[in-house]
Amino acid sequence: MLNDVARPRAAFFLSDRTGITVEMLGHSLLRQFEDVPFDEITLPYLDTREKAVAAVEQINARAGRGALRPLVFSTIVSPEIRRVIDSAIALHLDCFGLFVALIETELGVLASPSVGLSHRVDDTIDHYQRIEAIRYTLEHDDGMSRKDWELADIVLVGVSRVGKTPTCLYLALQYGINAANYPLIPEDLSRVTLPEQIRDIRHKLFGFTVEPARLHLMRSERKPGSEYASLRNCQHEVRAAEALMFRMGIPYLDASNKSIEELATAVLHQAKLERRIY
Amino acid sequence: MLNDVARPRAAFFLSDRTGITVEMLGHSLLRQFEDVPFDEITLPYLDTREKAVAAVEQINARAGRGALRPLVFSTIVSPEIRRVIDSAIALHLDCFGLFVALIETELGVLASPSVGLSHRVDDTIDHYQRIEAIRYTLEHDDGMSRKDWELADIVLVGVSRVGKTPTCLYLALQYGINAANYPLIPEDLSRVTLPEQIRDIRHKLFGFTVEPARLHLMRSERKPGSEYASLRNCQHEVRAAEALMFRMGIPYLDASNKSIEELATAVLHQAKLERRIY
Repeated sequence: MLNDVARPRAAFFLSDRTGITVEMLGHSLLRQFEDVPFDEITLPYLDTREKAVAAVEQINARAGRGALRPLVFSTIVSPEIRRVIDSAIALHLDCFGLFVALIETELGVLASPSVGLSHRVDDTIDHYQRIEAIRYTLEHDDGMSRKDWELADIVLVGVSRVGKTPTCLYLALQYGINAANYPLIPEDLSRVTLPEQIRDIRHKLFGFTVEPARLHLMRSERKPGSEYASLRNCQHEVRAAEALMFRMGIPYLDASNKSIEELATAVLHQAKLERRIY
Repeated sequence: MLNDVARPRAAFFLSDRTGITVEMLGHSLLRQFEDVPFDEITLPYLDTREKAVAAVEQINARAGRGALRPLVFSTIVSPEIRRVIDSAIALHLDCFGLFVALIETELGVLASPSVGLSHRVDDTIDHYQRIEAIRYTLEHDDGMSRKDWELADIVLVGVSRVGKTPTCLYLALQYGINAANYPLIPEDLSRVTLPEQIRDIRHKLFGFTVEPARLHLMRSERKPGSEYASLRNCQHEVRAAEALMFRMGIPYLDASNKSIEELATAVLHQAKLERRIY
């Protein structure tokens, strides 16, 4: 028979909206307790008293039968709903309750929870901005489209498989940025001028480079044994691309060993882009 | 001369990584103080003592000359770096410090900050999973590609401009899910069977519908005055698509008035998908 103490302890992530923030926060906290197994459960959209009561029942069901009480992380604007969650048999790590109180004291102003819950006008503008940014970014992926390059907020350049497309999509989705990208293909690398589409927007260009050995691995996954994927060709392309970017005064960073979020936020900060949405 | 008290108070978001979590958390807290203007500044990648000291200098520069002391939100794993931030002239809302202590007490186990900082193996697997999911999702956008539909985790269906593509990209980027989508075009709507690509994976289909008036607005932005965008045609397509989905037993939701995160998390939870990455 399984020892109760060895069973994973439940960790709930509760939110009155999507739960994305509380999941990210809670998960990174739990990662610091490497040897403790957790069973992670997200309960989003707890925006009524009834849903909160149902969530408490679900939490309490995990607290019974000798199991250790769950951890509950929450980001919930309504104080009333937070109080319902407080009644669960659990350690409630109430992000909003805790921090709102501290900020209220600091500012000498009371929070307006109803306002926080529904900035509907902002949200709708954000929504359209984001849809437009995604559309723009998809249309200007990989140098496609011949027009509207001047509408880009940023244009990533670099050799094939260096990470331009995922980074552009992240910039569009997370920050509402029109993020185009243009591949530096072998023909471009030997030129003395930039390709036509991006010639007049040089100040919007931002480059990625990569360790040739890593590029070789990435390309070999897609086209094993090809000349395109060979280490020799990767070395040549990377060297030529770096020389081109240097010659043209295009700032660039090394994308090796960086996650997509890291690349996107690095571009955001280094190119001093303004995020358009939250 | 501008009154110092009326100047926006600085709100810093500090992180040892990208800063995305702390920005989202801090921003939603500040939104509850509608009448207080804030100047929001993100300082990511504070992963050494030196960078933390420089951040403190930047924060203190905003605390001088009669200005109110800044608010500082942080998600920083290293206790040493958190202590450096504590020395700033600011209200430090230390998410990790506060919650780690509470969790340690509850679990009777000390956190291992060094581990939390670098789950490098997990991160690399996540990175590749995400790149692959994005590649898959782009290749299977809008019913493109004729192959590998059985590799989808989910296939969104619905009429044109209902929000399938942004939702699929969000599922791929945020959760590492292979999210294909297939447009229900007028020819499909009158059929008695499903289109060939998606016929054998009916259990993976999930539908979006929308209020016809809203669809009319969305389509009119792209193709004003067209038959495609006309309210009459939108009403017809939506009705036919709903009938088809009902006939085929495809679960669907109303995508009107929902943000992309809301749509993505609704699909995740309703279709009971497992997120593949964190």
